[in-house]
Amino acid sequence: MDRIHNFSAGPAVLPESVIREAQEDLWSHAGSGLGICECSHRSPQFDVVIDNARDRIHRLLGCDADQEVLFLHGGARTQFFMLPMNLLRGGRATYIDTGKWSDGAIDDAKLYGTVDVPFSSKSTNYDRVPGPGTLPAVPDGTVYLHYTSNNTVAGTEFHHIPDAGSAWLACDMSSDFLSRPVDGSKFSFIYAGAQKNVGPSGTTVVVIRKSLLEHCDTALPPMLRYGLHVKKGSMYNTPATFPIYVIEKVTAWIEAQGGLEAVEARNVAQANAIYGVVDGSDFWSGKAERASRSLMNVTFTTGDDDRDMRFVQEAAAAGLSGLKGHRSVGGLRASIYNAQTDAAVEALVSFMHDFEKRNG
Amino acid sequence: MDRIHNFSAGPAVLPESVIREAQEDLWSHAGSGLGICECSHRSPQFDVVIDNARDRIHRLLGCDADQEVLFLHGGARTQFFMLPMNLLRGGRATYIDTGKWSDGAIDDAKLYGTVDVPFSSKSTNYDRVPGPGTLPAVPDGTVYLHYTSNNTVAGTEFHHIPDAGSAWLACDMSSDFLSRPVDGSKFSFIYAGAQKNVGPSGTTVVVIRKSLLEHCDTALPPMLRYGLHVKKGSMYNTPATFPIYVIEKVTAWIEAQGGLEAVEARNVAQANAIYGVVDGSDFWSGKAERASRSLMNVTFTTGDDDRDMRFVQEAAAAGLSGLKGHRSVGGLRASIYNAQTDAAVEALVSFMHDFEKRNG
Repeated sequence: MDRIHNFSAGPAVLPESVIREAQEDLWSHAGSGLGICECSHRSPQFDVVIDNARDRIHRLLGCDADQEVLFLHGGARTQFFMLPMNLLRGGRATYIDTGKWSDGAIDDAKLYGTVDVPFSSKSTNYDRVPGPGTLPAVPDGTVYLHYTSNNTVAGTEFHHIPDAGSAWLACDMSSDFLSRPVDGSKFSFIYAGAQKNVGPSGTTVVVIRKSLLEHCDTALPPMLRYGLHVKKGSMYNTPATFPIYVIEKVTAWIEAQGGLEAVEARNVAQANAIYGVVDGSDFWSGKAERASRSLMNVTFTTGDDDRDMRFVQEAAAAGLSGLKGHRSVGGLRASIYNAQTDAAVEALVSFMHDFEKRNG
Repeated sequence: MDRIHNFSAGPAVLPESVIREAQEDLWSHAGSGLGICECSHRSPQFDVVIDNARDRIHRLLGCDADQEVLFLHGGARTQFFMLPMNLLRGGRATYIDTGKWSDGAIDDAKLYGTVDVPFSSKSTNYDRVPGPGTLPAVPDGTVYLHYTSNNTVAGTEFHHIPDAGSAWLACDMSSDFLSRPVDGSKFSFIYAGAQKNVGPSGTTVVVIRKSLLEHCDTALPPMLRYGLHVKKGSMYNTPATFPIYVIEKVTAWIEAQGGLEAVEARNVAQANAIYGVVDGSDFWSGKAERASRSLMNVTFTTGDDDRDMRFVQEAAAAGLSGLKGHRSVGGLRASIYNAQTDAAVEALVSFMHDFEKRNG
């Protein structure tokens, strides 16, 4: 069976070479005679997998010795409450509101302290993120600044790292994790659901500074304590072994490509190809403000709901899947995470030209 | 590559036919051209998967219309606190302490109310569960009775359902879930980590009575509210799609075998074959009291630590993997969940006879 072009916003396309390896390893992992889903998480066989996954992420992000990489359960959504539950504790945090996900994180944080929101693009349907240097200084006494680096729904992305002042810097990187070079050492807390750029759904990568652990609430149930997960190397309970296995393969694939610089170059080229069509004619318009455009989720429209819907259907019939925009913004969306193929993007560009010719 | 015989306590062996299907579907699921890890959880394609998985579990357990099947994140460990956090709320619960897992559940429950423990086999290294009718009546005003139906560490299992009186009945069925006919309608709350009998690690099946939802704490973060997960059909956030996919395949496999009666018959035959060797000579002894023996985890010993260790090593060399007992009880353990093959059990029985001959 041939694969079709997959523009799903997540769970999303994975590198074909990784899928091929996973097929083999499902039956017998690394020549062990045990399938990767069937071996104990406490076996030397799995130790190699999780250690490599942890090390590769640490290395790709340029983390320092104080930073620990964890694989936790519950999706990024669980970090929405687990972070403030552990670290806010009645204090004050700054959240930048750039979409559905920041908004959800803000709601959860309010359960545990005071939340300042110096920027929200809600009134313009989240079509932008704040530019560099445009936000007021984070107030004194702020525990952390939280932002969402890429917004899958509206198709926006930060192209700078906000200044947290003396507060800790926390980022939900779910949808652009490991898609470009980032100085990970600037962050106190990073989290990312795996299912966009690095693996299947079911595990969330957390990068936490060990120096934060002494500030965490220790009266919580064990599963909600970062310190315990650090101490146990993400093995306090059975982790989601298959997603972690795939993350190890994907991060190896990133390194083999030439690292994050090489991955970014391809991501930029793919995004430019699609934005080029969008900007090249009045038939199309982009959904996000230009300076805020995402390299991961290209949101656009033909300006007509029925025509957009026809685009989605005809594209699907032509083997281009998952191009419908999120229901809250409508229109069209092409998600082009790390593993998106040049062939898929070329096919999309060609289909867009063709569709315009037939409907323009 | 040939597979070896896998006696891992979990993640554990899966049906080979399911692995074969999963290999295909990783590349292109059900002829869609999209890999099962790469399709949106909100696609019609995945709806069929999760709906079937939910329906099959509901049917196999004989649930009634008030019971809802959920696929949640976080492992059974997360249910240790999520259940009392939602439903105990300062009240009184009864927990039967039959091992490491009940003990962990008790610790978490104490954070949210008063815990009565009318039975504990801790002093005999958890070698038994209470017999039918041996426990005092659950005190008036008790919110729920909680027990662990199978104990992987010591190798014990309940062969009856404890009487909860007028309290709700809650059970951690992680390690014998869907291994034998159970009247699921007797329970108010069931939970089971997938990685023993029904799938890879990364998702936890919860069966909850909808009539309980009105008693749940609604001031919790969304991810910790059962009501929201019921309302959203386990799709409040991205679920662990691959484990759910495998669960659907495994439950279909159970139904194709002839259902839980057929599965139980094979489980009993396999357990009897190994216990038969253990009981057949003074060379071996069982770790668990006879009436409490598990059909899932057969714990035994040669009575000598060094000899046990040699058994594990020689068995591994002969292609029988994962036979070392849990560190807290030592000795040997053969885990024979649903997907364990008769060939593996025959090979183990034969190896045990041979080992005894050489060392007896």
